[in-house]
Amino acid sequence: MGKQIRMIEVGPRDGFQSIKEFIPTPLKLEIIDRTVEAGLREIQATSFISPKAIPQMRDAQKVAEHCLEKHPEVTCTALVPNLRGARDAWDCGIGEVSFIISVSESHNKANVNKTVDESFAELARIRETLPDLSVVLDIVTAFGCPFEGEISYDRVHAHVRRAVGLGVEKACICDTIGIAVPDQVESYVKGLILDFPGLRLDAHIHDTRNMGMLNTLVAIQSGAVGVQSTLGGLGGCPFAPGASGNTATEDLVYMLNRMGYDTGVEFDKLMTAAKYLQANVEGNYSGHQIFVAGCNA
Amino acid sequence: MGKQIRMIEVGPRDGFQSIKEFIPTPLKLEIIDRTVEAGLREIQATSFISPKAIPQMRDAQKVAEHCLEKHPEVTCTALVPNLRGARDAWDCGIGEVSFIISVSESHNKANVNKTVDESFAELARIRETLPDLSVVLDIVTAFGCPFEGEISYDRVHAHVRRAVGLGVEKACICDTIGIAVPDQVESYVKGLILDFPGLRLDAHIHDTRNMGMLNTLVAIQSGAVGVQSTLGGLGGCPFAPGASGNTATEDLVYMLNRMGYDTGVEFDKLMTAAKYLQANVEGNYSGHQIFVAGCNA
Repeated sequence: MGKQIRMIEVGPRDGFQSIKEFIPTPLKLEIIDRTVEAGLREIQATSFISPKAIPQMRDAQKVAEHCLEKHPEVTCTALVPNLRGARDAWDCGIGEVSFIISVSESHNKANVNKTVDESFAELARIRETLPDLSVVLDIVTAFGCPFEGEISYDRVHAHVRRAVGLGVEKACICDTIGIAVPDQVESYVKGLILDFPGLRLDAHIHDTRNMGMLNTLVAIQSGAVGVQSTLGGLGGCPFAPGASGNTATEDLVYMLNRMGYDTGVEFDKLMTAAKYLQANVEGNYSGHQIFVAGCNA
Repeated sequence: MGKQIRMIEVGPRDGFQSIKEFIPTPLKLEIIDRTVEAGLREIQATSFISPKAIPQMRDAQKVAEHCLEKHPEVTCTALVPNLRGARDAWDCGIGEVSFIISVSESHNKANVNKTVDESFAELARIRETLPDLSVVLDIVTAFGCPFEGEISYDRVHAHVRRAVGLGVEKACICDTIGIAVPDQVESYVKGLILDFPGLRLDAHIHDTRNMGMLNTLVAIQSGAVGVQSTLGGLGGCPFAPGASGNTATEDLVYMLNRMGYDTGVEFDKLMTAAKYLQANVEGNYSGHQIFVAGCNA
């Protein structure tokens, strides 16, 4: 078998939160079950966030409990913006959360209404209060910010250093607005791996400029061990209305399987799940496979 | 300056032919003028093909003459399926044509109603009749065929060898249905460059599975000296309805310019042209840049 890649399905969080109309909880669970059936073993099932901020995530507890109980073989994670969310996730039985801090001050303020210092203070409180909760630092706007433009590697390095100083051992480098170019992805990912040898590094790449597949593959080839994506490419960049959102899981699985990587995912079953999603949730899809008949040789 | 890449705009041919309603000739010319204004210096302006087969191209002569007269600094080319088309192009003043032959027998039959042998016989006649016309072999279905599945490198090699035997010095490897994966693009492009050292090799990559940007960049990194794309990503795969078509020129220019390649194209002016196209021609667009406000840092 080829090199193993951790495929991290973030559709139930980053995909669903782009849908305004509430998706009935049983439908969410059915979609999660089908992605597990296809072989996905790491799922960001929801976010524990104020229902006022993102009403779509108001059933976080139910979704997480279902995922944890029905699929013990799956690493079920959640996104949290603060200690309260982390505590709620932990009380639910979640063992790993993604904690978001933007590298750029202005985006962090817009995203979670905190300064970067305040977010790091919150991260410290989470580490103290819940020492056994595994925390992944989401390095938000790592390549570029809608307000501040391109972000230098030095700022990303300093950002990760602060988190590592708080005992964080996992990070995910996020191209939040889909602005990165491949040589930038290569140098930032290689830089972090070289500078923080103990760090488990994943990548989360948006597809705004059609570079989702490219930048995700470059991240893998540069040493990222896991990649986040959404079934159907469901999602949307809040700062670029109409732009396509995430990299589509089925496109990545198609490519990586054919290139000999070990994703553990069966493409045909994943396509069945993607078609089910498309038939039942109206949203912004970019996974071209969904629309392609024939040609699958 | 970085490595020079020949950007070949094929929108007026491969993009426009995907539009059923006839685009008024003056509008076509305006779009061509705007792409030239942005810095594009190689344009496949039309195809000399039976107006019964593709009515959209019935103004081939007018479009070609405009392009040749108004833009002497531009290499204005055309696609032709047979000797008659080549002669019409030559009589118009066109110095270079792309001649399409599929590697797969079944696709060639479906595409031009000829066996592969018959197409090569036609190519031989073109070479004899019009020895001064430069002919680019379009290696159609080079990576995969909707009827025959994956195409081996050996078949592609044999295909190119036949053309080289007829004096052809330029070729374009085409992922007609957008089925290639990056390692396949790398091995086929490197293979052809190694096996045919005198050959000028370009690439034409469809985006069906979201790998248009990736495979085009891999083709460049593997030694292709020119890449074909369409403004706005306009186009569509005839065998995959709803699938997005070509790789978008503005996406490529954005990426390549930021990576330090020398495309000779000004991104902002190209976006102006892409927006003009979108505002005036209703079609299947995949160039995400068109929809993105801000975020251009």
